[in-house]
Amino acid sequence: MPSFRFLALVFAAQIAASAAWAAPPQPDPAVAAARAYRQAHEVEILDSYARLLALPNVAYHSSPAELAANADWIAAELTARGVKSRLLRLDEKTPPIVYGELDAPGATRTYGVYVHYDGQPVQAEEWQSGPPFEPTLYSRAMADGGQKIPFPKKGEKVDPEWRIYARSASDDKGPIPAILAALDALRAAGMKHRANFRFFFEGEEEAGSVRLEDYLAQNRELLAGIDGWLICDGPTHQSRRPQLVFGIRGYFGFELTVYGAVRELHSGHYGNWAPNPAQRLAELIASMKDRDGNVLIKDFHQGTAEISEQERRTIAAVPDFDAQIRAELGLAETEAGNANLLERLMISSLNVKGLQSAAVGENARNVVPARATANFDIRLAKGKEPEDFPPVIEAHLKAQGYHVVHAEPDAATRQKHGRIVKIVYDSGYVAVRTPVDSPFAKQVIEHARRASSAEELVLMPTLGGSLPLFQFEKVLGQPIVIVPIVNFDNSQHAPDENLRLADLWYGIELMAALFTMP
Amino acid sequence: MPSFRFLALVFAAQIAASAAWAAPPQPDPAVAAARAYRQAHEVEILDSYARLLALPNVAYHSSPAELAANADWIAAELTARGVKSRLLRLDEKTPPIVYGELDAPGATRTYGVYVHYDGQPVQAEEWQSGPPFEPTLYSRAMADGGQKIPFPKKGEKVDPEWRIYARSASDDKGPIPAILAALDALRAAGMKHRANFRFFFEGEEEAGSVRLEDYLAQNRELLAGIDGWLICDGPTHQSRRPQLVFGIRGYFGFELTVYGAVRELHSGHYGNWAPNPAQRLAELIASMKDRDGNVLIKDFHQGTAEISEQERRTIAAVPDFDAQIRAELGLAETEAGNANLLERLMISSLNVKGLQSAAVGENARNVVPARATANFDIRLAKGKEPEDFPPVIEAHLKAQGYHVVHAEPDAATRQKHGRIVKIVYDSGYVAVRTPVDSPFAKQVIEHARRASSAEELVLMPTLGGSLPLFQFEKVLGQPIVIVPIVNFDNSQHAPDENLRLADLWYGIELMAALFTMP
Repeated sequence: MPSFRFLALVFAAQIAASAAWAAPPQPDPAVAAARAYRQAHEVEILDSYARLLALPNVAYHSSPAELAANADWIAAELTARGVKSRLLRLDEKTPPIVYGELDAPGATRTYGVYVHYDGQPVQAEEWQSGPPFEPTLYSRAMADGGQKIPFPKKGEKVDPEWRIYARSASDDKGPIPAILAALDALRAAGMKHRANFRFFFEGEEEAGSVRLEDYLAQNRELLAGIDGWLICDGPTHQSRRPQLVFGIRGYFGFELTVYGAVRELHSGHYGNWAPNPAQRLAELIASMKDRDGNVLIKDFHQGTAEISEQERRTIAAVPDFDAQIRAELGLAETEAGNANLLERLMISSLNVKGLQSAAVGENARNVVPARATANFDIRLAKGKEPEDFPPVIEAHLKAQGYHVVHAEPDAATRQKHGRIVKIVYDSGYVAVRTPVDSPFAKQVIEHARRASSAEELVLMPTLGGSLPLFQFEKVLGQPIVIVPIVNFDNSQHAPDENLRLADLWYGIELMAALFTMP
Repeated sequence: MPSFRFLALVFAAQIAASAAWAAPPQPDPAVAAARAYRQAHEVEILDSYARLLALPNVAYHSSPAELAANADWIAAELTARGVKSRLLRLDEKTPPIVYGELDAPGATRTYGVYVHYDGQPVQAEEWQSGPPFEPTLYSRAMADGGQKIPFPKKGEKVDPEWRIYARSASDDKGPIPAILAALDALRAAGMKHRANFRFFFEGEEEAGSVRLEDYLAQNRELLAGIDGWLICDGPTHQSRRPQLVFGIRGYFGFELTVYGAVRELHSGHYGNWAPNPAQRLAELIASMKDRDGNVLIKDFHQGTAEISEQERRTIAAVPDFDAQIRAELGLAETEAGNANLLERLMISSLNVKGLQSAAVGENARNVVPARATANFDIRLAKGKEPEDFPPVIEAHLKAQGYHVVHAEPDAATRQKHGRIVKIVYDSGYVAVRTPVDSPFAKQVIEHARRASSAEELVLMPTLGGSLPLFQFEKVLGQPIVIVPIVNFDNSQHAPDENLRLADLWYGIELMAALFTMP
């Protein structure tokens, strides 16, 4: 889930102007109960969370047993809190869904709660904080000079600026201790749920949620009647204000491999005779965008939803955050002549995620590499389908003189074609958006405000990043609202991922408020 | 040292036409003695060599103690054979030279013998044959279906098609067992040397021989009076015919790093807003060469020695190997419209050795990378100096809109410049060439023919690859001839480096013949 930052103020301003949300939030007993419970149990909450973070959960890479250990842990904790829990399984190889039911007598509504327990790949040697599956506590963010400290013992004071470092500390195990503590808090205070809840913890979101559709389809009856999904993922606003998010861009990915000789060649003898796949891959990448970052692939943007006049006005009204972000990120300029970030997010992106050919630095060898690979992602704007892209990408590759293959080229193919590129596609999905003034969205907004305030809460109609949320709409016809709880500066997907405790404390109060929605 | 292949027939034809080398080789007692000794001691020769290959020797990466262990082993073996040996040391950090003296009473000439005991970096996980420092024997080349076999025990038959796999098995420990066995053979047969020999084993050739000049300068008196150097490095001809080589291209290297934001960014939210350093590096690389592989950097070739009319005729007379090599390497085409390999080697090369940015494949992360790096080498044609290149490369980078730095850019630099590239230079050296009709060259040719034949021996005036041989000429004013012994298909610099035993057996006979030069 993306570390988004900037779209907030526009919509906050927009929303604040609307009378529907002008009423001040009511003092809320659920939030008060959550706070009291948390204050009395901070050490236990942290200890419990550290046990979950110690379980390896890398999407694709962890073994099925390792991933299932995460699911078992979650199911056991839900069961201990009165949630009727079990694992849903498509097969042995797909990570299971942790499914749980919490019914309220006489409830007229049912809400889904979605979290994912898998995480992004780790390159352990790049982690400064400690091994990615040995949760480590710091006195504040390492980037701000935080020091490693021991986990507190019972009775010791806990500072909300402390951060816990581990893979998935934020993305997306972060909501799990918030949910568990909120359930504990409501039970401890004797407060009743008013609606039914259906818990749904996925185990391959970072692998593209390739089986989510199958899981939803297979359990259609179980999930029928859900009025809307609370998607517990992603960070709060960069101002550290809480936010709700109503939409997201789609995703598509692909990887290109360009071939040289069948083996690495000595660069002295073959250096300017044998074709160099790294050179050729560079030429291909360069052909895809202009110097300013605009995509040159023909028809890449065809079918993108028009930016309406209202959208243009909205974008124009946003205070210019861009210069501030550039300064923070050490960038003197951004793409397309410092084009406004919001404008750039209205179109589909084409981004090189990684490059690899032979080796660089101390490991560099005096060779002509045998192959060169580049991995790309595309973030789909509204109106684009994943299947729109393979034809236009392959047409572009062919126009550059390449023979396009989808598996390793065999000897006959190599003998026939001077330029060969392999393309392998990732799974993809479309953008999705829930209207901010729909009944479910309004219900969530009202209760989320009990854990913050009308002034604080940022409402974000869409984000630049992606989640496979469209499946809930596509398979079940049910709307979603994203309810983020973790700090924006959590280094998700990167080394030294972390969760700030103040954000976890907020998350407990938010979940308590949402658990009392009628 | 390069795995060259093709230049041979030109010069072979050229040389064969010259009356000076038309006499058939004489039957040679030294060669006969070498063969008899080897046939009786194959198992011991292999066992001894396996002990040397088990010593890690990666240039740059191995510890000083590990590299010195190689030197100690060699010095002890030379001493055991009557060579007065010792280590020359510039300092504790530079790998030592193994220096040895073998004097002949009444000798009027002195010859140097050069070998290097360090090797290229290894990525152990890419080795199919076995760990790079656990020498492994195969029944023939793995590529030809060779199977792993145990090392033979005393009395067991040894097949000359067997191959020993290990880092440096060929490049460049291969000549060491040949030298040792040749010395043993001559002593066992009671044969005397007629000239003095000076042994010189270097330990950082694969790191660019950065201190070779200092070693030669500091030991100028010790090495004075050497009539010529036998450079024991590189492979025999790809036809499996022996060859002698009289020149080599120069070398220069550099690495470019292009910067994005100070950290990896989530590709969804920043994907088409933050500059992507992988995209920009690709654009830079693409700007350096045209689609056909011709260098576009202004003045890159300025000062290159003209190709003479005779050289053109020589090139034109070469049988066209190129199609055959293309087929073997799985290449349907080569650079510059299938330009002749020999023509391409007459100009300086620009070659991407490696690319790296974030990660690809299963490790790919959904990020905008923070940096992207490309490592390059240049093989200098005659007439070019390493110092010619930095100004023209940096001018090219600036012409592409880049601010050029030579260390990590600081925050102020990042804020000021939209496009930043770091360039780091490798050490370099010029090309060198010994005239084929010089007295030393003629002496070597005559004796090398005793281990093969006039028809077999390929004479190669220059190669595409590089060695820092120019130092012998520059510092000491002494000529060199390269006397390769190892098989051309040895996978040097790459995983699964190996030595074919038949080539080692040839090397023993060659060294015995050369050790009896007057």
